[in-house]
Amino acid sequence: MGKLARKVAMVGAGMCKFGRNFPEKRNPDMWIDAWLDAVDKTDNGIEPKDIDACYVGNYSSDLFNHQGHLGPQMANLVGLTPKPAARFEGACASSGIALRQAVLAIASGVHDVVAVAGVECMTEQPTVNVTDVLATASDSLFEYPAGATFPGLYGTLASAHFKKYGTTAEDLMRVGIKNHENGAENPYAQMQQSIKDLMDSKRAKYEKQGRDIPEWEDEFDFLKSSSNPIIAYPLRLFDCSLITDGAACIFLTAEDVARDFTDEPIWIAGTGQGSAALSLHDRDSLTSFIATREASKQAYEMAGIKPRDVQIAEVHDCFTIAEILAMEDLGFYEKGKAVDAIKEGESKLDGALPINTSGGLKSKGHPVGATGAAQAVEIFKQMRGIAERNRQVKFDVETALTHNLGGSGGTCVVTVYQK
Amino acid sequence: MGKLARKVAMVGAGMCKFGRNFPEKRNPDMWIDAWLDAVDKTDNGIEPKDIDACYVGNYSSDLFNHQGHLGPQMANLVGLTPKPAARFEGACASSGIALRQAVLAIASGVHDVVAVAGVECMTEQPTVNVTDVLATASDSLFEYPAGATFPGLYGTLASAHFKKYGTTAEDLMRVGIKNHENGAENPYAQMQQSIKDLMDSKRAKYEKQGRDIPEWEDEFDFLKSSSNPIIAYPLRLFDCSLITDGAACIFLTAEDVARDFTDEPIWIAGTGQGSAALSLHDRDSLTSFIATREASKQAYEMAGIKPRDVQIAEVHDCFTIAEILAMEDLGFYEKGKAVDAIKEGESKLDGALPINTSGGLKSKGHPVGATGAAQAVEIFKQMRGIAERNRQVKFDVETALTHNLGGSGGTCVVTVYQK
Repeated sequence: MGKLARKVAMVGAGMCKFGRNFPEKRNPDMWIDAWLDAVDKTDNGIEPKDIDACYVGNYSSDLFNHQGHLGPQMANLVGLTPKPAARFEGACASSGIALRQAVLAIASGVHDVVAVAGVECMTEQPTVNVTDVLATASDSLFEYPAGATFPGLYGTLASAHFKKYGTTAEDLMRVGIKNHENGAENPYAQMQQSIKDLMDSKRAKYEKQGRDIPEWEDEFDFLKSSSNPIIAYPLRLFDCSLITDGAACIFLTAEDVARDFTDEPIWIAGTGQGSAALSLHDRDSLTSFIATREASKQAYEMAGIKPRDVQIAEVHDCFTIAEILAMEDLGFYEKGKAVDAIKEGESKLDGALPINTSGGLKSKGHPVGATGAAQAVEIFKQMRGIAERNRQVKFDVETALTHNLGGSGGTCVVTVYQK
Repeated sequence: MGKLARKVAMVGAGMCKFGRNFPEKRNPDMWIDAWLDAVDKTDNGIEPKDIDACYVGNYSSDLFNHQGHLGPQMANLVGLTPKPAARFEGACASSGIALRQAVLAIASGVHDVVAVAGVECMTEQPTVNVTDVLATASDSLFEYPAGATFPGLYGTLASAHFKKYGTTAEDLMRVGIKNHENGAENPYAQMQQSIKDLMDSKRAKYEKQGRDIPEWEDEFDFLKSSSNPIIAYPLRLFDCSLITDGAACIFLTAEDVARDFTDEPIWIAGTGQGSAALSLHDRDSLTSFIATREASKQAYEMAGIKPRDVQIAEVHDCFTIAEILAMEDLGFYEKGKAVDAIKEGESKLDGALPINTSGGLKSKGHPVGATGAAQAVEIFKQMRGIAERNRQVKFDVETALTHNLGGSGGTCVVTVYQK
């Protein structure tokens, strides 16, 4: 992999409130919300005339909304017609890919400014089964007909990790508890409640109904109870990310014009992408994602950094086990050692390496095609020092990373950001 | 739009036989056929280790095959794991976009060699209505629920052209007759019969059945008969392209390494892309596509050529009227004048500007996501002088063009090739 022929900067980023937004909002509405939020967060403003192209990340508007061809539709809504507009798909890494392709397009010399969109409206069609749609990102010839939808596939990965490294259900729970704590501080998140808050509201509800109040000692006790049912062993409900409608928007520019929009560009220092066979049975390992290792190797090399240089990261916690796998495969910790770091609180907001300060997919929500762009939005805020409520990390972030995964690790895009 | 930071060459190109290939072949099988054909047509050969990434154009495997996430799947089948792999979508311009993004990725400095795939298997699922799937490339909120599927939308465009320029049904028929003549010379085409051949076989069939033999004077007479029913006025059956399964493969490289693979690189001299509102009711004109005008303007500018410099072109004849619109919007002829040129035979194989020597979408077939890449395959053959049977043009092709359209003109990608 070579170097970028010219540098690329992120000059603005924004998103809509994630949640079950339908029927109030569909893809077009959420995209406009995200666009306006990103324009608002671009220091000197930005207008359609400044923008050369619109790159849309979306997983499956085909199946979720019976609408394909999103590129020109989204471009038209914000006044970019007749400029180039296209859709990019790599399952849950779709807008990570859109962002990467926009970086490459700018570096190529052809475009100076690209608007990157991530959009997904998962709750629009009452007859659409979300698990069925997501399963089309696995192998629909061998895995899906055997009944292996994503909770099952990630349950298999978790079981393998448990067996090889002694990882436990409590280790997974710590990831969820931390991400919900962060999400509670994010006004754009779908679930703005800590697990403790949720436990307390459940107690209050039981009390109001005159039922026996469960004697949960702490969050772990709550998470081991029938209030957190097993979805696919060993994964329980709170090990799974959410079904979400959402959109995000990023403005990228060539270095030559970045200062027109801001005095504080955030540079895309490295971009990497990797792939793997869709089916788990075609892989060498069930405890490590080759796509993540490949993508991060490329991104670190381009940025000229080591994993230890990363100060904060948004990683793809579609399931709690996925955050642990990412922490290891990105080289932050040796295989099997991430759980110790989590136990020590290293990935918390005040830890040595805060991970998913946004709340992650677990608490912020996971509108699949919008997730990669939304990860970049959080990095933008943390590097600018404008993260809402009590979510801003207490140090100056010079180097950050996003890790966006597709399917059960079939695609991975890693991006390194520097000031 | 700027210049490419470095030059990009096409060094190999191939495709599978287009047709109703299911159940013998699905996307994976057709892609492997196309890959092997392209490897075979790369002078010094090419191996997975030489290739940096796999860019897959596909319209809707989601709806056609209940399989998303084609990037890593296709990459894995040809030994490219764990390299970057992604899917690109812009309706029927999907692999035109994949090709363009591959050009930009190489120019960016990040990749040296990219394999571009175009794949679509439209006949796999017996319960899937192809017209319904294609209609999701129109506006699914305003156009589709009103009953406007693509034949209807293009029928509207044809009617507007008839009214404004006096174009006639016979003018449309000349496009189909010419493209079937070319397709009869293409062993990879779905329908390898001229309209005259089809007329004669129909007569023979009637004779065998002891029925009255129709007194068709010529092809026009045949095309005006009930054997060519109206689909959406004024478009008849033979004004519409085919429902097809197919795949194509292109190898693109940076100029630095092109000579490793061939002594005769074909340069991507220009690439352009445009967009329009999805809905016809949001457009300024029904007789011209702004996306085509924008894409070709960019491509000509980058290549430093004028429309008159183009010697052969593959244009997107999803309906016969679309070929006429393309000839005008690409600047080959003034608005309303293309039909005169067609009448003079200028777009025929031995004309001044041969168009769709492959047989076009009309006769070669239109597996939507594979069409853009397959257009490049024909240009590769014509520029190399290796077009099969009696299809090779009689002059040395120095400059050629492909025009790949999405939906009813919502997306357009134009590529200029030079030796």
